[in-house]
Amino acid sequence: MDLKKNLITLTTDFGTKDYFSGAMKGVILGLNQDARIIDISHEVPSHDIWAAAYMLGAAYEYFPQFTIHLVVVDPGVGSQRRPVLAVTDRHYFIAPDNGVLSFVYADPGFSKVIHLTASHYFREGIGSTFNARDVFAPAAAWLSKGVEAENFGEEITDYVRFNIPCSRKENGAVAGEIVYIDKFGNAISNIKSSDIEELCAEGAQCGIEVGQLALSGVSPFYSALKKGEAGAVINGGGFVEIFVCQGDARKTYGFKRGDKIFIRKL
Amino acid sequence: MDLKKNLITLTTDFGTKDYFSGAMKGVILGLNQDARIIDISHEVPSHDIWAAAYMLGAAYEYFPQFTIHLVVVDPGVGSQRRPVLAVTDRHYFIAPDNGVLSFVYADPGFSKVIHLTASHYFREGIGSTFNARDVFAPAAAWLSKGVEAENFGEEITDYVRFNIPCSRKENGAVAGEIVYIDKFGNAISNIKSSDIEELCAEGAQCGIEVGQLALSGVSPFYSALKKGEAGAVINGGGFVEIFVCQGDARKTYGFKRGDKIFIRKL
Amino acid sequence: MDLKKNLITLTTDFGTKDYFSGAMKGVILGLNQDARIIDISHEVPSHDIWAAAYMLGAAYEYFPQFTIHLVVVDPGVGSQRRPVLAVTDRHYFIAPDNGVLSFVYADPGFSKVIHLTASHYFREGIGSTFNARDVFAPAAAWLSKGVEAENFGEEITDYVRFNIPCSRKENGAVAGEIVYIDKFGNAISNIKSSDIEELCAEGAQCGIEVGQLALSGVSPFYSALKKGEAGAVINGGGFVEIFVCQGDARKTYGFKRGDKIFIRKL
Repeated sequence: MDLKKNLITLTTDFGTKDYFSGAMKGVILGLNQDARIIDISHEVPSHDIWAAAYMLGAAYEYFPQFTIHLVVVDPGVGSQRRPVLAVTDRHYFIAPDNGVLSFVYADPGFSKVIHLTASHYFREGIGSTFNARDVFAPAAAWLSKGVEAENFGEEITDYVRFNIPCSRKENGAVAGEIVYIDKFGNAISNIKSSDIEELCAEGAQCGIEVGQLALSGVSPFYSALKKGEAGAVINGGGFVEIFVCQGDARKTYGFKRGDKIFIRKL
Repeated sequence: MDLKKNLITLTTDFGTKDYFSGAMKGVILGLNQDARIIDISHEVPSHDIWAAAYMLGAAYEYFPQFTIHLVVVDPGVGSQRRPVLAVTDRHYFIAPDNGVLSFVYADPGFSKVIHLTASHYFREGIGSTFNARDVFAPAAAWLSKGVEAENFGEEITDYVRFNIPCSRKENGAVAGEIVYIDKFGNAISNIKSSDIEELCAEGAQCGIEVGQLALSGVSPFYSALKKGEAGAVINGGGFVEIFVCQGDARKTYGFKRGDKIFIRKL
Repeated sequence: MDLKKNLITLTTDFGTKDYFSGAMKGVILGLNQDARIIDISHEVPSHDIWAAAYMLGAAYEYFPQFTIHLVVVDPGVGSQRRPVLAVTDRHYFIAPDNGVLSFVYADPGFSKVIHLTASHYFREGIGSTFNARDVFAPAAAWLSKGVEAENFGEEITDYVRFNIPCSRKENGAVAGEIVYIDKFGNAISNIKSSDIEELCAEGAQCGIEVGQLALSGVSPFYSALKKGEAGAVINGGGFVEIFVCQGDARKTYGFKRGDKIFIRKL
């Protein structure tokens, strides 16, 4: 396979009701007509940097080498917050320096962050509200045309990075939290299947507590339960996920991001 | 035109707020960077297999020969329900075996269904919640790279197939039902224009009853009525469709899927 | 860069819940498998011709030369309203003749409008509800394959064109109106930064009134204010835009399209 650098993904909070993503795509294609643009999502909740970081983190690894990921959730647009380009051994990431790349910085292949300062790669007459069109999209287009990462600016080391909450052992239990809730209302925790291997080994039953809900054991798959029943499952990312079979766990139990979850031996 | 097998359409209930369709696209492009991915819809109502079957049925025929249609509405994900590949004389279809391909099985060019069992075409370490990423997307990618359908598994004949409701004659009337309601609130029936040709021939008026609504005659087009008026029209699929001019028939009349509709000579 | 005519953008009110845009894409690719389709938006509010005109106007200019823009917001579908092809020095536009191309007609490079009448470029058996699939999409596909604009029909000069509301001077103030509200709830006016240069020159403070809200001065960027504060900013299009920092100005102040806005020296 002839690997090319012409694949550009988009993750934004611009929604699909306006012309914002359309204008970005136009700018990219105007500079590199051979660019191929893939929408990851334009429905990140408005200004929710954490959600964008999580969603990018859950999707980017599947893309081929040299893919360029453009991520724009940018409440500080127009201010002094810096536009950056992050590089791993497989991918490029272009985004505002506000923490949205935190999961990328935790990638074992992560190598460096460049402050985008080479303004000849931006559009002329940059406004203060639409850097996605004026700064990020053109930088991605030039990168996809073969401009080297180093040419976009100076390396920096003081980039903004969130503390990614980890699960921990606490009085014999594994304690974690809900880090993402998806459109089905499934509540995804930061407890990995490997964290609870001992607790829930063959034959052993483990108890799962999250808010008012107490569950025993992990279901092998969603439809092992009856419609409307709540359960836990190891999801596609390898994390414990709370669900309601063909229902909506968020609506039923009022889960929200940050809710604590405990798993212990019964 | 040099027909290629690199076109892959997506129809899912994953929504556009999460990273699910993004991860699927990454997996496909990671295996075949030349694949071209077209979204039909990611907004099938959650777990609504019938709606997905209908939507696919209304869209697939327009795509060029050798298009691969990936359809994932999959409440039974992770269970024993089988992943399948259906083949017609023009297209390929990859989906869970839950009835979502029922309209495909009614296609005159339909030839066979293969149970996807050749797991070397799947991702390693398949989870129980995201077969779209782990099974369906890689199978589509390998198919698009030229792997023959036969190589994915054994032909089966006991695949799940819905009974597609048909209109019928009943006491001199044609009786049918609402089978789909679109985003404009238009209620689409399963009564074909050819079913009512005799009833509504030149000069003859036909009466249409659906719920509380009684209409006489079929309008030539939506805007033949005044704004807010209800009417019937022969839609783009050749079926009788109930609408409100520049309004929303579902909201105004409370239509839902399965509502009976009768058309008789006045 | 080898400029091609194979780029087709879509702007519709079809939403993303149905199969409509999927069927359009299938028709285009069925006729020209090398066409590249870019979604600008399918979430124009139903039947809102003005919003579609504005969104297209805000996005089209960024696309490369020879891009074909397909715009279908078409409450008069099936009636005598004409399908048209508009040509500028850089782009093509295919749409119903209902005013949706009004901003294109104001483009300095605008050259002509052709009434699409060459029905051999349409699908056979055109219905009365889905001209996007039967007329507009095939015309775009044939255009992308190299058919000359002149071959699609006769030039017309009586095409439908909206009056685009302009700002004006009024008793020493600049008076304008809200012309678009985006998904963040930002209210975009038709007052250009150049309209208020004198009023808000260095050192001078200008007062901005819109509905119940009175602001003084223009903020350099959104996050110059505190979260929840209202302000005005010059947006990416060069227009005065009313916003709430990390909030929703529409929800907070009840703004709607057509609301008057006045800017005067304080």
